[in-house]
Amino acid sequence: MEDVRLLMLPGPVPLPERVLQAMMRQAINHRGPEFGAAYTESVEVLKTCFGTENEVFILSGSGTAGMDAAISNFGKGKKIASLVNGKFGDRLYEIASRNGDATGIASEWGTPVDLAALEEALENGAEMVTMVHNETSAGILNPAKEVGRLARKHDALFVMDGVTSVGGDEVLADEWGVDVAIVGSQKCLAAPAGLAAVAVSDRAWDRIVEDRPYYLDLASYRKSAHKEPMQTPYTPAVPLFLGLHESLMMIKEEGMEARVARHHRMSASVRAAVAAWGLEMFPQLDEHSAYSNTVTAVRMPEGVADADVRGTVKKMGIEIAGGQDHLKGKIFRIGSMGAVSAPEILATLAAVQHALRKAGVAGVGDGVEAAAEVLNP
Amino acid sequence: MEDVRLLMLPGPVPLPERVLQAMMRQAINHRGPEFGAAYTESVEVLKTCFGTENEVFILSGSGTAGMDAAISNFGKGKKIASLVNGKFGDRLYEIASRNGDATGIASEWGTPVDLAALEEALENGAEMVTMVHNETSAGILNPAKEVGRLARKHDALFVMDGVTSVGGDEVLADEWGVDVAIVGSQKCLAAPAGLAAVAVSDRAWDRIVEDRPYYLDLASYRKSAHKEPMQTPYTPAVPLFLGLHESLMMIKEEGMEARVARHHRMSASVRAAVAAWGLEMFPQLDEHSAYSNTVTAVRMPEGVADADVRGTVKKMGIEIAGGQDHLKGKIFRIGSMGAVSAPEILATLAAVQHALRKAGVAGVGDGVEAAAEVLNP
Repeated sequence: MEDVRLLMLPGPVPLPERVLQAMMRQAINHRGPEFGAAYTESVEVLKTCFGTENEVFILSGSGTAGMDAAISNFGKGKKIASLVNGKFGDRLYEIASRNGDATGIASEWGTPVDLAALEEALENGAEMVTMVHNETSAGILNPAKEVGRLARKHDALFVMDGVTSVGGDEVLADEWGVDVAIVGSQKCLAAPAGLAAVAVSDRAWDRIVEDRPYYLDLASYRKSAHKEPMQTPYTPAVPLFLGLHESLMMIKEEGMEARVARHHRMSASVRAAVAAWGLEMFPQLDEHSAYSNTVTAVRMPEGVADADVRGTVKKMGIEIAGGQDHLKGKIFRIGSMGAVSAPEILATLAAVQHALRKAGVAGVGDGVEAAAEVLNP
Repeated sequence: MEDVRLLMLPGPVPLPERVLQAMMRQAINHRGPEFGAAYTESVEVLKTCFGTENEVFILSGSGTAGMDAAISNFGKGKKIASLVNGKFGDRLYEIASRNGDATGIASEWGTPVDLAALEEALENGAEMVTMVHNETSAGILNPAKEVGRLARKHDALFVMDGVTSVGGDEVLADEWGVDVAIVGSQKCLAAPAGLAAVAVSDRAWDRIVEDRPYYLDLASYRKSAHKEPMQTPYTPAVPLFLGLHESLMMIKEEGMEARVARHHRMSASVRAAVAAWGLEMFPQLDEHSAYSNTVTAVRMPEGVADADVRGTVKKMGIEIAGGQDHLKGKIFRIGSMGAVSAPEILATLAAVQHALRKAGVAGVGDGVEAAAEVLNP
């Protein structure tokens, strides 16, 4: 047993008691009416999270399975332009490379995506664009609306990884022109890890490829979803479906508008603390990008080791995230997604503040109080 | 809420209380030592279930994901011979067809697989053989040892679907020459649905293809499994891993030999009831095949409707399985896998016996007593 009491990662996130209880059901028949009703109700709420009228399917697999499904079903053998400004953008590019003729349009991690280069790729015939909406590895929110506009202008499909934005931040898939949007269960939805949901537009269905994978064949998912009761082509991860269903009922009760407002307030409070500490946000923004509202990436102060911050915080029972790959030790990241509210934020900021002071960082102001001001204006 | 109290299907199976409790944990970090230890311990027990010294990987996806991984990683673009004598054999053939140059070697569902035709296909250059060990759609146990011998003789890889045998019936993957064996979590392992485990031989690794899928790339699973602590390439379905780990600890406590003996006793008791009822077993056996020890498929008596048997049984709170596809209404199937023991068997047989008598089937003997004799010899 680890002694971490509170996960403040960009997913997985702490699960509400109701969600845990929902998972602890005896196995039910996944071709029966109870499962079908849970799937149907889940999809209704997911549509409000995605901002879509399109059909939504739930796959038994991680967010990466959703991404792989999106790109392999609609992009296999095609010219794909992949915007990359962080680890997950890079993963999309890798998936695109396995499936088609992919061009990676890379910016430094945490800097804005290159819209000019994207337009050039579209002019050169790209048939699909991939982008991560909320790039957690760098704490940056990418311009989905702009990219959607460019993709439509050049008649390309737009595949958007909404794994860590859908259900927490504002997502308007239909309005933005997103053709395939993906979310993972263990992030803003505050459900257990292991499911992905995929929203698919008619434009995408019209261009589905012949040479599809088997397990992740979205046409099979669609066919089974149209059955009565609604079902999945292969045995689904039943306990996770039941947990996700419960978390979506909680989202419905909270209301998406209130939920987005809460996520904005939580992340604004973290940013207020960062400013009060005199630390620097990691992302560099332009007019189209913004700080993530579900994870805050902070530049590690000069001369401070990762262990001095994250290690000390962990000793106090709280786990925050470090940098990934080449950003290891260069940044730390505080997740604020899912069911997170003031107590978790205040506890986390107090622990980080203590760690910074203990590590001898000069001029660390009272970020906890600054955050409290945002939380209770 | 459905009023079914007891699932006696060929999976999903009722989950032991310990397994349900294990799932109801708060999210843990899937890159941390606790998750790594659970994965490592799980693999150790799974090796005893598979009868293998090979590496075993756990995928977040259903048994079909495991099958798709096996065939796409090791059979893409190759000549594949698929033995088919039931629904799941047919699924393997479909997956093989998506991935390579597949030949389906079909027998009537529930009749023995055609070993002569397999040998011919191997002589004609088949590089991979696929077979379902325990074909639940027809209640027949196929000759893995014979098929393994033929595959080795002709230097082909042998991919075996052990979804409903591994963890319940005797499986000796290494001794039989199985190169890739797959199990699903919600069958004999008595764990929640949504995970597949795959055991891979060195012969298979030597022949892994270049053009692999992304989410189901077994080379990625292997790379991540070699990390310290052991992990998965993408976010795993954590609650299911914890549930499966607990069910595997229960298997370790019971011991595989005792577990196999229990499954044999349970299915023998069901067969004893079928004989006493004067009904006919569905499978037709040859010297290489046997009745399944985890599900019993029974021919529906002449003039009796599916609803008369399964409907009546369901009214008493017990769900048994019907026939699939063209066998709908022609057979019924009683699952006896996982944590099943005498009380569940006796209740189920008593309900089926009552249904048969109520449906007016002539000469229905006391199958319950016949089963009790087997259960308590």
